[in-house]
Amino acid sequence: MAVRTIEVRERVMAKNDELAAEVRCRLSRHAVAALNLVSSPGSGKTSLLERTLEHLGDKLSIAVVTGDVQTQNDADRLARHTDRLVQAVVTGGACHLDARQILTALEEIDLAKTDLLFIENVGNLVCPASWDLGETAKVVLFSTTEGEDKPVKYPKIFRESQYAVLNKLDLLPYLGFDVRRALSYARQANPNLRFFLTSALTGRGVSKWCAFLTSCVRKATGQ
Amino acid sequence: MAVRTIEVRERVMAKNDELAAEVRCRLSRHAVAALNLVSSPGSGKTSLLERTLEHLGDKLSIAVVTGDVQTQNDADRLARHTDRLVQAVVTGGACHLDARQILTALEEIDLAKTDLLFIENVGNLVCPASWDLGETAKVVLFSTTEGEDKPVKYPKIFRESQYAVLNKLDLLPYLGFDVRRALSYARQANPNLRFFLTSALTGRGVSKWCAFLTSCVRKATGQ
Repeated sequence: MAVRTIEVRERVMAKNDELAAEVRCRLSRHAVAALNLVSSPGSGKTSLLERTLEHLGDKLSIAVVTGDVQTQNDADRLARHTDRLVQAVVTGGACHLDARQILTALEEIDLAKTDLLFIENVGNLVCPASWDLGETAKVVLFSTTEGEDKPVKYPKIFRESQYAVLNKLDLLPYLGFDVRRALSYARQANPNLRFFLTSALTGRGVSKWCAFLTSCVRKATGQ
Repeated sequence: MAVRTIEVRERVMAKNDELAAEVRCRLSRHAVAALNLVSSPGSGKTSLLERTLEHLGDKLSIAVVTGDVQTQNDADRLARHTDRLVQAVVTGGACHLDARQILTALEEIDLAKTDLLFIENVGNLVCPASWDLGETAKVVLFSTTEGEDKPVKYPKIFRESQYAVLNKLDLLPYLGFDVRRALSYARQANPNLRFFLTSALTGRGVSKWCAFLTSCVRKATGQ
């Protein structure tokens, strides 16, 4: 019984990898950089995206696919900041997005007119770590209110990510949160992680984050 | 392919339900109340349990099974507060505990000498909602730093829970968090939820929470 489950899971994963390769191929054909944002519920993925759209929405053509579990909330919040496409994949209780959903979402996006695609995954530090969505890179977000030990407790998503955003810096004065310890835990999981320290609320660190995004787009277009 | 996956999943779930019934039967035979704590990573499950053990550790015999994903951290934190058993189920990247793990953990616990069992699930608001562990009740924990909309975005765990703890009240002065709105969203998902408002840091609300736990034990023993 156990064996049979694993067998099926492996076939599901293999199919997902095939579809992820197809996503990657389409994005690359149109020189679109794609970032897969993963975090706990409430770490600030949507708030950071709102800030990003405010900063870069006039300079870059940004599309967002958001894997909201049950609502249209996040898509609505983002749509206020952009004329470009914001698409919600209502996953109805699923714990991660998969490559098939991204492929379907891409059908609706004019990739020729897109510079940067954000995939806002379902709020979950566990399951999304195992699923390739065809993204350029995974970005793990965590926040100062969650405790320093998240990278030790959920190492896989830190290993699978190239970039990490530590958000809610504005709350540091009210928390016993040790930033150096948190970053050191994250480096234990993945020594190659590049960090961004932000407050989506006050905007601190957002310009560095946006400069990085602009460089991602430049790299994707080979400039 | 899709159909086959679902078929297997249904069989896995049916097997889980069988094992959960077995857990429930053993707990009931020994009049043990069991609460399954579910939350996002970093909402304060372990901190609330630490406070609870401080308050009730002398009065009740409390055992804890903690579904730490990769580490012994939570078990170590809890073990400092109690002489009783704290057991970590290292789930190695799994996104929820299942009834088989609880049944195995129960083998190591002297149920005849236990009043109250806490199951600290993996930090995840999605997957644990679907798995019966044989608990007396599920308790969903969320915190003031996560935004008011978590019950709307992850309604299933709020529907499946009988009790909800809103934690990190100490941070309210620094957040734009509307407690009434959060509770109202939670009631939309489940009008029968009973709420506890706590700060595991300052201890606010913890005595009410502990009075509730004492009443759960009384109910389980039929007193």
